[in-house]
Amino acid sequence: MAGNIFGDVFRVTTFGESHGAGLGCVIDGVPPGMLLSSEDIQKDLDRRKPGQSEVTTPRKESDRAEILSGVFEGKTTGTPLAILIRNNDQRSQDYSNIQDFFRPGHADYTFLSKFGIRDHRGGGRSSGRETAARVAAGAVARKFLAARNISVTAYTLALGGISVPSVDFSEIEKNPVRAPHAAVAQEMVRKIIEARDAGDSVGGIVEAQIIGLPAGLGDPVFDKLEAKLAHAVLSVGSIKGIEFGSGFAAAGMYGSQHNDEVVVQNGRPSTVHNFAGGIVGGISNGDAVVFRAAVKPTSSIASRQNAVNRSMQVSQIEIKGRHDPCLCPRMVPVIEAMAALVIADAILIQKTIA
Amino acid sequence: MAGNIFGDVFRVTTFGESHGAGLGCVIDGVPPGMLLSSEDIQKDLDRRKPGQSEVTTPRKESDRAEILSGVFEGKTTGTPLAILIRNNDQRSQDYSNIQDFFRPGHADYTFLSKFGIRDHRGGGRSSGRETAARVAAGAVARKFLAARNISVTAYTLALGGISVPSVDFSEIEKNPVRAPHAAVAQEMVRKIIEARDAGDSVGGIVEAQIIGLPAGLGDPVFDKLEAKLAHAVLSVGSIKGIEFGSGFAAAGMYGSQHNDEVVVQNGRPSTVHNFAGGIVGGISNGDAVVFRAAVKPTSSIASRQNAVNRSMQVSQIEIKGRHDPCLCPRMVPVIEAMAALVIADAILIQKTIA
Amino acid sequence: MAGNIFGDVFRVTTFGESHGAGLGCVIDGVPPGMLLSSEDIQKDLDRRKPGQSEVTTPRKESDRAEILSGVFEGKTTGTPLAILIRNNDQRSQDYSNIQDFFRPGHADYTFLSKFGIRDHRGGGRSSGRETAARVAAGAVARKFLAARNISVTAYTLALGGISVPSVDFSEIEKNPVRAPHAAVAQEMVRKIIEARDAGDSVGGIVEAQIIGLPAGLGDPVFDKLEAKLAHAVLSVGSIKGIEFGSGFAAAGMYGSQHNDEVVVQNGRPSTVHNFAGGIVGGISNGDAVVFRAAVKPTSSIASRQNAVNRSMQVSQIEIKGRHDPCLCPRMVPVIEAMAALVIADAILIQKTIA
Amino acid sequence: MAGNIFGDVFRVTTFGESHGAGLGCVIDGVPPGMLLSSEDIQKDLDRRKPGQSEVTTPRKESDRAEILSGVFEGKTTGTPLAILIRNNDQRSQDYSNIQDFFRPGHADYTFLSKFGIRDHRGGGRSSGRETAARVAAGAVARKFLAARNISVTAYTLALGGISVPSVDFSEIEKNPVRAPHAAVAQEMVRKIIEARDAGDSVGGIVEAQIIGLPAGLGDPVFDKLEAKLAHAVLSVGSIKGIEFGSGFAAAGMYGSQHNDEVVVQNGRPSTVHNFAGGIVGGISNGDAVVFRAAVKPTSSIASRQNAVNRSMQVSQIEIKGRHDPCLCPRMVPVIEAMAALVIADAILIQKTIA
Repeated sequence: MAGNIFGDVFRVTTFGESHGAGLGCVIDGVPPGMLLSSEDIQKDLDRRKPGQSEVTTPRKESDRAEILSGVFEGKTTGTPLAILIRNNDQRSQDYSNIQDFFRPGHADYTFLSKFGIRDHRGGGRSSGRETAARVAAGAVARKFLAARNISVTAYTLALGGISVPSVDFSEIEKNPVRAPHAAVAQEMVRKIIEARDAGDSVGGIVEAQIIGLPAGLGDPVFDKLEAKLAHAVLSVGSIKGIEFGSGFAAAGMYGSQHNDEVVVQNGRPSTVHNFAGGIVGGISNGDAVVFRAAVKPTSSIASRQNAVNRSMQVSQIEIKGRHDPCLCPRMVPVIEAMAALVIADAILIQKTIA
Repeated sequence: MAGNIFGDVFRVTTFGESHGAGLGCVIDGVPPGMLLSSEDIQKDLDRRKPGQSEVTTPRKESDRAEILSGVFEGKTTGTPLAILIRNNDQRSQDYSNIQDFFRPGHADYTFLSKFGIRDHRGGGRSSGRETAARVAAGAVARKFLAARNISVTAYTLALGGISVPSVDFSEIEKNPVRAPHAAVAQEMVRKIIEARDAGDSVGGIVEAQIIGLPAGLGDPVFDKLEAKLAHAVLSVGSIKGIEFGSGFAAAGMYGSQHNDEVVVQNGRPSTVHNFAGGIVGGISNGDAVVFRAAVKPTSSIASRQNAVNRSMQVSQIEIKGRHDPCLCPRMVPVIEAMAALVIADAILIQKTIA
Repeated sequence: MAGNIFGDVFRVTTFGESHGAGLGCVIDGVPPGMLLSSEDIQKDLDRRKPGQSEVTTPRKESDRAEILSGVFEGKTTGTPLAILIRNNDQRSQDYSNIQDFFRPGHADYTFLSKFGIRDHRGGGRSSGRETAARVAAGAVARKFLAARNISVTAYTLALGGISVPSVDFSEIEKNPVRAPHAAVAQEMVRKIIEARDAGDSVGGIVEAQIIGLPAGLGDPVFDKLEAKLAHAVLSVGSIKGIEFGSGFAAAGMYGSQHNDEVVVQNGRPSTVHNFAGGIVGGISNGDAVVFRAAVKPTSSIASRQNAVNRSMQVSQIEIKGRHDPCLCPRMVPVIEAMAALVIADAILIQKTIA
Repeated sequence: MAGNIFGDVFRVTTFGESHGAGLGCVIDGVPPGMLLSSEDIQKDLDRRKPGQSEVTTPRKESDRAEILSGVFEGKTTGTPLAILIRNNDQRSQDYSNIQDFFRPGHADYTFLSKFGIRDHRGGGRSSGRETAARVAAGAVARKFLAARNISVTAYTLALGGISVPSVDFSEIEKNPVRAPHAAVAQEMVRKIIEARDAGDSVGGIVEAQIIGLPAGLGDPVFDKLEAKLAHAVLSVGSIKGIEFGSGFAAAGMYGSQHNDEVVVQNGRPSTVHNFAGGIVGGISNGDAVVFRAAVKPTSSIASRQNAVNRSMQVSQIEIKGRHDPCLCPRMVPVIEAMAALVIADAILIQKTIA
C-alpha cells in the first residue's frame, strides 16, 4: 500500500532516511538453512557506497551492515532477517539553504504534495541513500541465487552518449564506471570528470544479464517476469525507462525478423538473437534475461540554477551537498539487487506450482 | 502470487481462456455510489474487439459484457463488481495442427515449462484475448477517473518505422490505426496491409497521456507511480519496453538540460519540456503523465516458418488462425485500461494518507 | 483491503449478492494437473443449499455450479478457476416491507453506515447466500486435500442447549442436523421444529476436525494456523466465537494439567488429550486439528419484533422471507469449506520453505 | 506469506528473537503529521516488560525502544516507522540442558518440523518476547486512536477459576494482575503465588473493550471486524480461543433473546445487552466492541515433567529459565496492542470507501 514492501514470498520491507538514525530492511521469507554472514552483505554495500572512486561523490559513509535477527550459528533460520545500517556522515546544514526551495528534478514538491510534511535534509526517504537498504536485501537474494548457479550482472552500457561496442564481464569491476570494456571505460571516466568540472552531470544506460535461470519462472498475466522486473527497476530513483531484449527496436521490426532463427539449445527451443530477452509470454525460457535501464543525469548539479520556492516564485539557488556527477557506476549494484530480489521471489513462487 | 490479481485498493482479478466458456473480471474495492451500466464497459470493449476494421483480425467476437454483481439500481454498491464475457467464435480446430509445436514468439514452451500442462487452443490464458477482461475492468476505472476530470488517452505514435510528427487527440478514433495524425495514419494503414499481404506483421510504439492528475499520487519507494505503470503496461503481452518523459533520451543528456527550464504554472512548479513525464521521485507533480510502450510485431504470421516441436526437432509449420498484422490499433484501449487501473488505485491509496 | 479476497497462495475472490444475477468465485493459485469436475463442486453445494430438509428454509435454489475457466480436458491448468452460480428463486418483494427498517441482528444499519448505499433485497452481499461461493471454492480445496489424505469434517456438536455425548463421523450425514450421534440428532430436530413453530430460532456449536495434517504447517508469528482458521471461521456470518483444543476450559487449568501426558505416537511427540488442538506455537504438530465455533440463533425470526427505522424510531415489524430456524445444519459445509481453504493455502505456503 | 507482516494499510513487519541482537518492528502506512516520541512507545513496553511485579518472571530486561526512522521534529512523516529494542539480559545457558528436548506445550517440535533448523535459546522467534515488537507497534496505533477518542482497554476477567463480578476500569492498573476489581485482584494474586510455589502455572481470560468506534468499520465478507480481531488475538502465543459479545453463550440462546431489546441511542440503533459485541455483519455498529480471549496456563513450569527428546524417547526434564506463573497480567498490553492495530487499520481502510 504505502510502497515500502516489495515481493510476494521473498518479501522485503525497507525503512530509513538519509539523515536520521539509519536505514535498513527486514526480509520475510528467506528460506532456512542458507549460509549467511554480514560479509556477504558488506561486499555489495561497498560497491554501492559513496566515496569509492574519483567519479563518485566524495561523501564518506562507512555503511556497515549489522544483522539484527534471522541468522543463528551462521545460517538463516527462516525467521525475518533484519539488517541495520547506521547513518554517520550527515551534513544536514548543507541543506538548510534549500529548505524553502523545490530543487529541480527532485521530489521536494511532490513529496510535500503527498505527505504535507517533508524532511528536507538530503531528501529524507527520497534520497538515493535509500537504495543502501535495497542493496543489503539484494545481497541476500544474490547469495540465494548463487547457490542455484544463477548470476545477475549489470554494467554501464552507455554514458553521456558513449557506448561500449562489446561486453566483457571480467572488465566491469576493474574500472570506476563499471563498464564492460576497458578502453571505453576510460572515455567514460573523462566524460564524467568533464561534466563534473563544468558543474554538470551526465546520464547513461545500465544493462543487466541474468544467467542460469530455468525455464518456467514468472506468471502469464499480471505478474509477467518483465512486469515485475520493470516494477523493480523503475522503483529506483532516476530511472526513466526499461526495455527487454529487442526493446524499442522491436517497434521497427517485422514479425518474420523478430521471431528470429529458431534453434534447439541445451535440449530446449531457443533463438539466435534472443530478441525475447529470455522471457516469452511473461515466463522465462531458459535463455539469458537481458534488459536495459535509462538513467537520467543527476539532478543535483553544482551550477547555479533556477528553482521555485514555497511562495511559488522562481529564483536562483545553489545546491551545496556532495553529489555523483553520474549515477551509473553506483546504480549498477542497485539494479543487480532489484533484479535479484525479483528472481529469488519468482523461484520461491514457482515452488507453489510445481 | 499466481499473478491474476492486480492493484492494492482498486483490485482486479481476471479469469478465462480464449477457447473456454468465457472470461471476465472481479473488481474488489470499487467505491460505492458510482453510476455504472454495462454500456460503459461495452464502449471500451468495442474498441478492443477483433474485426473492427480492415487492419485487424477478421475474427468476429461479439464480446458482450454482463455485469453479474456489484451494481444495484444503476449504481455501484461497494461490493465486488463481476463482469462476464462469454466466448463464442471459437475455431479450436485451427490450432490442432500446432498442438505439438512451440510457435515462435509464443508462450507455448514457457507455459508448458511452468505448468506442465497446456491448453493449446489459441494460447488459452496466454492469448491476447485475455486483455478483454482488462479492458472491461479498465472501463470501470476510466469512469471513476472521468468523474474526477482525469483522462487517459493512448494512440499509435509509430508503426513499422513511421512516426507521427505531432499529436492531435481529435484524430485518434477517426482512423483504424488510432494514430493522432490523419495523413500519417493513412501511411500506417498501407504499411500494415503491405505486411499482411506479405504474410508478415509489424511493430510500433503506443504513447499515452494521463491528463488532470493532482500532484501527490504514487509512493516514494517501491511503488513509484512509474514502477506501477511499468508493471501494468509490461504485464500486457507483446510489450518490450516502456519509457517515461525523456525516457531513453535522458541517457544522453546533461543534468543542466534535463532539469529543464523551471516555471510556475497553475500555482505550482512545472517545467517547459516535461522531461519528468509528470512524475518526480515516484510521485505525480500535476503535469501530464506521459509514457511510451514498445509493441513487438505480432508473432503469429501467415508465412511458413521454422518451429521446434515436442521432440525438440526443428521443422516448418504454418499458423492458420486469424491474426492482427499489427497489434497497435487494438493495443491502444488495453494500455489505456491498464494505466487507468493504476491511477484509480493510486487515488484510493492516497486517501489513506491525506 | 475490501475483504472479498481470501488466502495467500490458494487465493479466493468471491462476488455476488443474494438477489442479483448470481454469485461465484475465482480461485487463483490452484495447482495444475488436478482432476476436477463440476460434480465435485456440486456435491458440497448440495449440502449447503436451502430446502434440503424439514429443518432448513423451504426456499428452493438449484445452486448449479458452472466452471467458467481453469479446467481443460478434466484437469486444472494452473490458471484461475472461475465458478458461477446463477440466482433463480428470488422473491425480492418479500423484502419491500422492511426496506426502511434495520432488522434486529442484521447488517442493515452497519452496511448502510459503511457504504452509504444498500441493496435491501435479502441482505445483498451480507446475505447468508454469499456462503455458496465459499462452499464452491472450498470444494476445490477439499479435492486438493483429499489427494493428500487430509479430511476436514464438521458437525453439530450442540444445539439449543443439547450436546452430543460422543462423536461418530458415520452418523453425520444421516440426519438433517448433521450431528455425529443418531439419538441426540433426533432431539435436536425436535428442538428446531419447536422453535420454528414458536416463530423463533436456536443457536448451536459446530465442531470441526482436520485429520491427516503433517507437522509443520502454519507460521510462528502473525499467521499462526489458529489465527488463520479463526479469521476464516469468524468471517462467516453469525459466528460469535472459536476455540481450539482445550479452548476456554484452559483458562481454569494448571500448566501441569494442560501440558498433558506426553507420548510418542507415529514416531513423533504427541499427548493423550490433545489440549493443543493439533497446533503448537501456531504450527501443526501432526495431531488432529480440533476447533469449535459458536453459532448464534438466526436473526430472522417469524415473530413480530421491535426494530428501528430510518427515522430512528422503534416500531414493530414482521420479517417475511423464508429462513432457517437454526443455522448449524447448513453451517457445517460452510465451516468445512473455510477450514479447507486455510489448510490448502498452508500446504502451498509451506512449499516455499521446505 | 511467512506471516511476519500484519495489516493492510497500517502494516506492521516484526523481526527478532529472544536471544539475538534484538527485536523490533517497521510500520508502513503510519499517516504523516502525527505527534510521536519514544516515550509514547516506552509507556506500553513498560507494562509488558518482565520483572514488573511479584507475579511476573523476575527476568530483567530494560526493553528500551529506539525510533530509527519515520519521525522528524517530533512528528511522523508518512515514511516507515522503524523501532528497535535491543536484547540484554540473555541467559542462553539456561537453555543448554533442553537443547535436545521438545518442551511440553512449546513450539520446539513444530518449529523444527517446519524449518528443519531451530534456535533453541528460549524459543527464538517463538518466544513470548516476540510480543515486545507487537506492543511497540501497538503503541503507535493507540496514539493514532487516542487522537480519534478511541480507547482499547483490556484486563484480566478470570484467572485460575476466579472471575471478577464487575468491571471498574480505574482499578486495572492498580493491581499486578490487571484485574478491574480490587478485592478479586488480591485473590488472583494469591492464586498465582500458590501455583508458582507449587512449581505450576494457571490460565485465565482476558477481556477487551474498544470504546469510541464509529459505525461502519470492518468489511462484510472475509475481513469482518471479528475475523480480523480474531486473527490478531489468536496470533499471540498461548491464546486458545476468542468470543465476541454473547460468544459461546449464544449457542444456547433463542433468536428472540439474542436479537435483544432494540433501542435508539446517540441517534443510532442499539441494543440493551450488546450481545452483538459491537459488530453486526462484520461491521462496527457504534457500540463498544467487546471480546474475551482464553489464555492457557504457562507451558514452562518449574516442576519436573516428562518430555520427548530428539531420539523420540520420553524422559524427565527440568525447565530452568525464569517464567511467568500466569500470562494474563503481561498479556493485557499485548492484546490491547493487537486490537489497536486492527482498528487503526480498519479506520484507514474505511477512508478508501467513504
